[in-house]
Amino acid sequence: MNELASTAGARFDPALREKIENLINDYAHALDDEEIDRWPQFFTESAVYHVTTRENHEAGLPIGMIRCVGRGMMLDRVKAFHTANIFEPHVYNHILGRPSLSMEPSTSVCTARCNFQVVRIMQDGRSDLYATGKYLDTIVFEKGSLKFQERIVVFDSRHVDILMVVPI
Amino acid sequence: MNELASTAGARFDPALREKIENLINDYAHALDDEEIDRWPQFFTESAVYHVTTRENHEAGLPIGMIRCVGRGMMLDRVKAFHTANIFEPHVYNHILGRPSLSMEPSTSVCTARCNFQVVRIMQDGRSDLYATGKYLDTIVFEKGSLKFQERIVVFDSRHVDILMVVPI
Amino acid sequence: MNELASTAGARFDPALREKIENLINDYAHALDDEEIDRWPQFFTESAVYHVTTRENHEAGLPIGMIRCVGRGMMLDRVKAFHTANIFEPHVYNHILGRPSLSMEPSTSVCTARCNFQVVRIMQDGRSDLYATGKYLDTIVFEKGSLKFQERIVVFDSRHVDILMVVPI
Repeated sequence: MNELASTAGARFDPALREKIENLINDYAHALDDEEIDRWPQFFTESAVYHVTTRENHEAGLPIGMIRCVGRGMMLDRVKAFHTANIFEPHVYNHILGRPSLSMEPSTSVCTARCNFQVVRIMQDGRSDLYATGKYLDTIVFEKGSLKFQERIVVFDSRHVDILMVVPI
Repeated sequence: MNELASTAGARFDPALREKIENLINDYAHALDDEEIDRWPQFFTESAVYHVTTRENHEAGLPIGMIRCVGRGMMLDRVKAFHTANIFEPHVYNHILGRPSLSMEPSTSVCTARCNFQVVRIMQDGRSDLYATGKYLDTIVFEKGSLKFQERIVVFDSRHVDILMVVPI
Repeated sequence: MNELASTAGARFDPALREKIENLINDYAHALDDEEIDRWPQFFTESAVYHVTTRENHEAGLPIGMIRCVGRGMMLDRVKAFHTANIFEPHVYNHILGRPSLSMEPSTSVCTARCNFQVVRIMQDGRSDLYATGKYLDTIVFEKGSLKFQERIVVFDSRHVDILMVVPI
């Protein structure tokens, strides 16, 4: 990787940066505000959502805690959330780093990486640092709106509460 | 709420976004740097500062941990901080999310929402995640400067150390 | 310090802000991604990197946990990291606040301040909030690229794990 590539290179289009930052931010706010029904709408029809650990990701291992291929699987997951799952109520608080962005000029496909720290707050008031890691995103336009074509959630730790009810 | 409204809609004026982000950021830095005397100056003369929990906020309950109506009450609070309160010395570290912004075109009143995570560091060196939550702001121009007309601090957890000496 | 100076003053050049934010962000991502060899390249040839506590910094005390003067000392530190140090493997996750920026017009030297919260993840999966504090930076152009001329890392707490193997 070229040193300081993103500071030395051409400027990333500011209006596009803003739209991407809005997308990434809205996604987190939707989850934090318990608007889980909005979750699949942040993805393209054929998108991949994959949650894994740093260790597995760096080793190229395909196994993850969650893997959804296509918006249909995401809608099923939301449905299960509402109807089937039994869990202790809780909410999230996402804090995200500023994303690093790049774009493939020939295809207009953007890639983004940003850090996250997620605190989980249980109904009785307990708070804990639930997870830290990074989002590795591929972002495209679909019918005029920016959507995730791929969102890989890479946890820093191998210790993750695998009973993940709400997506990260 | 319209899906992805903020990505689909017109672009928020970049110069105004920067000013709002500066306001929100300066506020946090002032508190983190123990410049509490600056705190009332971030608000308009008639502003409301209200600290509550998510549970109370969503239920529409008016009771909060702190409620100041008007800059005068804020100045009183700062005075009490300097003269009356007895507490174990500590400092804060605020980390804020990127704000979601919208503006009512007819009035030029802006609303903002951003997440926060605040770590509290005691004089003996202990650090703990003091609070997480979101700021819900109404922001206006007063004599050419942006100020908070309303700042509602919504804690995620119902467990908050109610001996809050320094505002969040 | 003038109240709300940064909201009232002239707008900081947006393209320069972006470059500075990229620099600050890339630095954090390089460390989080264990690309420690890139670390000295973020500094000028004669740069100072100084890690201290808030208490020592405010008292003007020169002693810190780490002090490197010049890129040569930084390269030595990276070399020691690869060859000499024995430590339990771990990675960082940096979350940074938005930087406050100012520029001295006559010299084009920029100063920046941003908050940080760093979580440390040990190889066995344990995560802890390793440090909170602020970066106080002086940033200049060197051969067309932005670099740190000075980076002072000010920890909020006096309790810091002094066995700091990887820079913050």
